[in-house]
Amino acid sequence: MPEKNNSVAVLGLGLMGTALASALLKAGHDTTVWNRTAAKTGPLAAQGARPAETVTEAVEAAPLVIVCLTSNDRVRALLEPEAPALAGRTLVNLTNGTPGQARELADWATEHGIAYIDGGIMAVPQMIATPGAYILYSGTDEQAYATHRPTLAALAETKWVGKDPGAAALYDLSLLTGMYGMVMGVAQAYALIGSAGVPAREFAPLLKDWVHAMTAGLVPGMAEALDSGRHLTDVSSLAVNQAALPNFLDAFTQQGLSTELFEPLQTLLDRAVDEGYAADGLSRLATLIKKDRIAAKKD
Amino acid sequence: MPEKNNSVAVLGLGLMGTALASALLKAGHDTTVWNRTAAKTGPLAAQGARPAETVTEAVEAAPLVIVCLTSNDRVRALLEPEAPALAGRTLVNLTNGTPGQARELADWATEHGIAYIDGGIMAVPQMIATPGAYILYSGTDEQAYATHRPTLAALAETKWVGKDPGAAALYDLSLLTGMYGMVMGVAQAYALIGSAGVPAREFAPLLKDWVHAMTAGLVPGMAEALDSGRHLTDVSSLAVNQAALPNFLDAFTQQGLSTELFEPLQTLLDRAVDEGYAADGLSRLATLIKKDRIAAKKD
Ligand SMILES: NC(=O)c1ccc[n+]([C@@H]2O[C@H](COP(=O)([O-])OP(=O)(O)OC[C@H]3O[C@@H](n4cnc5c(N)ncnc54)[C@H](OP(=O)(O)O)[C@@H]3O)[C@@H](O)[C@H]2O)c1
Ligand SMILES: NC(=O)c1ccc[n+]([C@@H]2O[C@H](COP(=O)([O-])OP(=O)(O)OC[C@H]3O[C@@H](n4cnc5c(N)ncnc54)[C@H](OP(=O)(O)O)[C@@H]3O)[C@@H](O)[C@H]2O)c1
Repeated sequence: MPEKNNSVAVLGLGLMGTALASALLKAGHDTTVWNRTAAKTGPLAAQGARPAETVTEAVEAAPLVIVCLTSNDRVRALLEPEAPALAGRTLVNLTNGTPGQARELADWATEHGIAYIDGGIMAVPQMIATPGAYILYSGTDEQAYATHRPTLAALAETKWVGKDPGAAALYDLSLLTGMYGMVMGVAQAYALIGSAGVPAREFAPLLKDWVHAMTAGLVPGMAEALDSGRHLTDVSSLAVNQAALPNFLDAFTQQGLSTELFEPLQTLLDRAVDEGYAADGLSRLATLIKKDRIAAKKD
Repeated sequence: MPEKNNSVAVLGLGLMGTALASALLKAGHDTTVWNRTAAKTGPLAAQGARPAETVTEAVEAAPLVIVCLTSNDRVRALLEPEAPALAGRTLVNLTNGTPGQARELADWATEHGIAYIDGGIMAVPQMIATPGAYILYSGTDEQAYATHRPTLAALAETKWVGKDPGAAALYDLSLLTGMYGMVMGVAQAYALIGSAGVPAREFAPLLKDWVHAMTAGLVPGMAEALDSGRHLTDVSSLAVNQAALPNFLDAFTQQGLSTELFEPLQTLLDRAVDEGYAADGLSRLATLIKKDRIAAKKD
């Protein structure tokens, strides 16, 4: 019965859940939808989705249940009472969370005979089902993933990252961590150039090209250094970066900006040079962002 | 006498100064070089440069003097006694510094009849005289810049950013600020994924593509919002980002990493939501990184 295999339930119709359900419908899947605020099922019903009155009804409609809520504690609260209905089905959780939360949900699911797959969406809603978007998946039951992969492929490119249920969350958080750093840098850059009255639109192409060029060089370069353990550089040493950073903090202050986002980088560079890494490149920093390093420093 | 017009003196032969002098020689310029540690003139002399015994001798050899030392206080200390020799010449300072330092040097130079141009090199030494590298220039004497632009073009693409002598430093620091944020993000991302034993080389392509894609969207998007003052978003609100960040801090802690680089982002997001910007996008942050905002908060 191919129809039954192709049917999906989507729980949670926020910005992201709506985009997911819509992509499944466009790909021709028999899609049942549920949302706490029932009104959000309307536009999807118009596209052919079946609105369910209760979570149980939604879960029972399909062998594959996708959930995408604000946070994992809400997923847990919503689905714990549904364990009997979920038993024997595959639950794909696309809610953002920590590896620890994913592992706990996986343990709970396994206990109740539910195949649990955790996922991390590397896209904004507008990018769902467009080229470049992908979703990271992980879980103990690789067979359940293999069974449903063709359906999941309607959402975005699929990337399996392993049997540790926390792996998808770890990859997801790591990628977003890189992005959040860039966000801090770009926000501070616009604040600085804006403080001199330069329109952001005029500065944007320079900023985009520069961050792109530096990312293209630094990301693979750092990986080589980290995997080989060889951090010496002929480009720009931690000593040079440590000496340069006060210029940035001074300029922020002179222009009326706060230095809060960049002070910790100065502290980290100081620590790195103190520990004898003055001649190493920026890759060394990734090895020094450790809890115990700070604790040791404070003793 | 085109030969005389084409002659250049380079003071400071560190990683960058050496790359600059080498590019000038390759472009056929009559190049005089000086370095505090005289031995560093050797390889350039072998390429045809004339080593000068004293700073004065170097300065007097050319109408265009390029200086590239560790910091601007060292430039000041080195060149103050040379004011008589520098009078009537053009001094291009490619040392990194703050807009304030550039303006002070410009004032000093003007007082002594020296045409001062400040510059910011947007390249690492290996990129000098290759496509994509450029140098930002600014200064009160745009005519002196126009005269020497053809010679400067041998170093990298030239970009004039205005008559405020501090402008080049401001653009330079703003671009590097964007880069340093990315560096923090990427270093923390590698620390996080590495804490689970994932080789950096395996993660690098995902990280590079993700940061690239997010930069390509965010940098122009933020500029539109900042110039128009319209920060509302349908992609990802400050409220959603504020709620997500504890997952990152928790994951760092669970994996034995320090949270020092990202705690200020949580504080900034909390402040933004407190101030009523929950529905705005990340662009709003650039307007809140202000000294007085923090002072107000502390009162
Ligand atoms: N937006 C993005 O760019 C993006 C990108 C990647 C990943 N994500 C992740 O996707 C997830 C959803 O994000 P979103 O942008 O769709 O957020 P959203 O628009 O705020 O939607 C949140 C959804 O969760 C539901 N919900 C919240 N608390 C609930 C509860 N206690 N019981 C039942 N349902 C509850 C909401 O229902 P109501 O409609 O009843 O409030 C709504 O359907 C998050 O984990 C987010 O990190 C989002
Ligand atoms: N490397 C890069 O990627 C890069 C990129 C863009 C901009 N920059 C900027 O370029 C400038 C130079 O950087 P770099 O990489 O060439 O640094 P570097 O290799 O450390 O060279 C520093 C130079 O400054 C000279 N110097 C230092 N103190 C001096 C003093 N008191 N009197 C006279 N000379 C002095 C040194 O002379 P000795 O040889 O005698 O020590 C050396 O020639 C810096 O402002 C840097 O921020 C560098």
